[in-house]
Amino acid sequence: MKIVTKDKVVYSFSPRHKPVEHVEPGELVLLEAEDAVGGQVKSEDAALESLDWSRVDGATGPLYIEGAEKGDTLVTEILDIKTESRGVILAVPGNGVLKDKPFKAAAKIVKIEDGFAYYDDIRVRSIPLIGTIGVAPAEGEQSSSTSGKHGGNIDCKEITSGTRLYLPVSVDGALFSAGDLHAAQADGELCVSAIEIPGSIMLRFSLIKKKQPPWPILETKDHYSYLVAGDSLDDATVKASEAAVEALMRARQCSFEKAYMLSSLLVDIKVNQVVDPQRGVRASIPRGEILLRDLLV
Amino acid sequence: MKIVTKDKVVYSFSPRHKPVEHVEPGELVLLEAEDAVGGQVKSEDAALESLDWSRVDGATGPLYIEGAEKGDTLVTEILDIKTESRGVILAVPGNGVLKDKPFKAAAKIVKIEDGFAYYDDIRVRSIPLIGTIGVAPAEGEQSSSTSGKHGGNIDCKEITSGTRLYLPVSVDGALFSAGDLHAAQADGELCVSAIEIPGSIMLRFSLIKKKQPPWPILETKDHYSYLVAGDSLDDATVKASEAAVEALMRARQCSFEKAYMLSSLLVDIKVNQVVDPQRGVRASIPRGEILLRDLLV
Repeated sequence: MKIVTKDKVVYSFSPRHKPVEHVEPGELVLLEAEDAVGGQVKSEDAALESLDWSRVDGATGPLYIEGAEKGDTLVTEILDIKTESRGVILAVPGNGVLKDKPFKAAAKIVKIEDGFAYYDDIRVRSIPLIGTIGVAPAEGEQSSSTSGKHGGNIDCKEITSGTRLYLPVSVDGALFSAGDLHAAQADGELCVSAIEIPGSIMLRFSLIKKKQPPWPILETKDHYSYLVAGDSLDDATVKASEAAVEALMRARQCSFEKAYMLSSLLVDIKVNQVVDPQRGVRASIPRGEILLRDLLV
Repeated sequence: MKIVTKDKVVYSFSPRHKPVEHVEPGELVLLEAEDAVGGQVKSEDAALESLDWSRVDGATGPLYIEGAEKGDTLVTEILDIKTESRGVILAVPGNGVLKDKPFKAAAKIVKIEDGFAYYDDIRVRSIPLIGTIGVAPAEGEQSSSTSGKHGGNIDCKEITSGTRLYLPVSVDGALFSAGDLHAAQADGELCVSAIEIPGSIMLRFSLIKKKQPPWPILETKDHYSYLVAGDSLDDATVKASEAAVEALMRARQCSFEKAYMLSSLLVDIKVNQVVDPQRGVRASIPRGEILLRDLLV
């Protein structure tokens, strides 16, 4: 097993980052992660105004996956996510879905115990998820605060233990990084933060050669979902629908019109988050209706 | 029991429509409904170009609910939805989420049997829902093709048998109408139609006096959801989030900041449809986290 400590942190996905570890497909990897605010908020009266914003949304890595080549798909099995017992949620003026409202900065320390998060007297089930997970784009640099075809700050509440993520490899070694764990989050992540928490992720990689998903794919027990980013929710929805309809055309060997009509019955558009620089939705198709190979091109 | 036949159809919600029936709270009402295309598509080669578009999206009604006054909430219990055995799904050029793609008009007749819809060799579970359901606005006329605070063409897949809908009454008698049944629909209704089908709805009304929801509320087994319309998905999401955060402030007697942070954990933004003149989302809150009274103002 390889262990990657949380001091190995990057704030972008880029082909120029030097890998901090080389990993073989099939090998277990334990990735430690600081929380999304770089561990800077230790108490509820921490002055958010004095946060060092260059140290937020870090991702641990990057890892060089042996054998991964441009044009392949990197398959990441999320075997387990373990969080510490203390997280933080933040309201930051000018941020979140209601950013135009006047409000004050606020922080709340949340305790995690026996699978629940305790926010004062409110108990919320804690289902830890990975907020940021991705690979290097072919060129340029993508901030780890945003998301795109390379993955990134997807903030999808379904990227949990027991799922698989399929990412398109754009550079040799893929250069995979992940972090930004959330102890709990609803679809939308309305106030801009979830329960931000440090922890660790147990991962295992494999490769699909010479095929790629048009967008990252999440595989859960029941569904395949394209995880799609756009300038607005509407823009992301059009792109997600296009990918899903094209996948149904491949799956059913049918016309656009037939796949389009089927999409009205089979494809759920769900919201990942509405608060990051790019908005995110997922187009979810029941696993009984489509094979993985039809989701790749 | 009152029976309202499907020839009593309106194509808008308006205070000027004459009620076709007077109904007492508590009384059972069986509402029959034509399909959303007015029964005009009888075969798959029906010329969609020659459809009479003034006869689509009809709603049966309106009903005058005794005792309903401006400022009240009309509670509609959906006791059962029964569909016929034959529905139709349509692709209409220039419509749906991929309206900018070139494609041909198409129609597919779908058979419903034993709780499933059969689209060629694909079997989709049929969970009948009401597409259009609402009351008269205070003034003016709202086409039954669109949705707003009065309800209307909400196209939410969760408006099924066993749910309750709470609508704000704007005129005496409420002037309730409903129709546009779907045998199956996914979140998004991507191609612009679902399985459009005739059928009947068993309803029972009650009233909450002198309180109203800011948007229609759907009550299911697990959740309360504000059903919110906007010019775009993003616009609808902002409005839905605002309503949900304000409800959490009332429920927890707390500051905006606290309710905003809680909304990131408790409020799921889900998509109703992305294809009607106004886009629709729902802000869903678990019933364990909020009381109905806190959702009303």
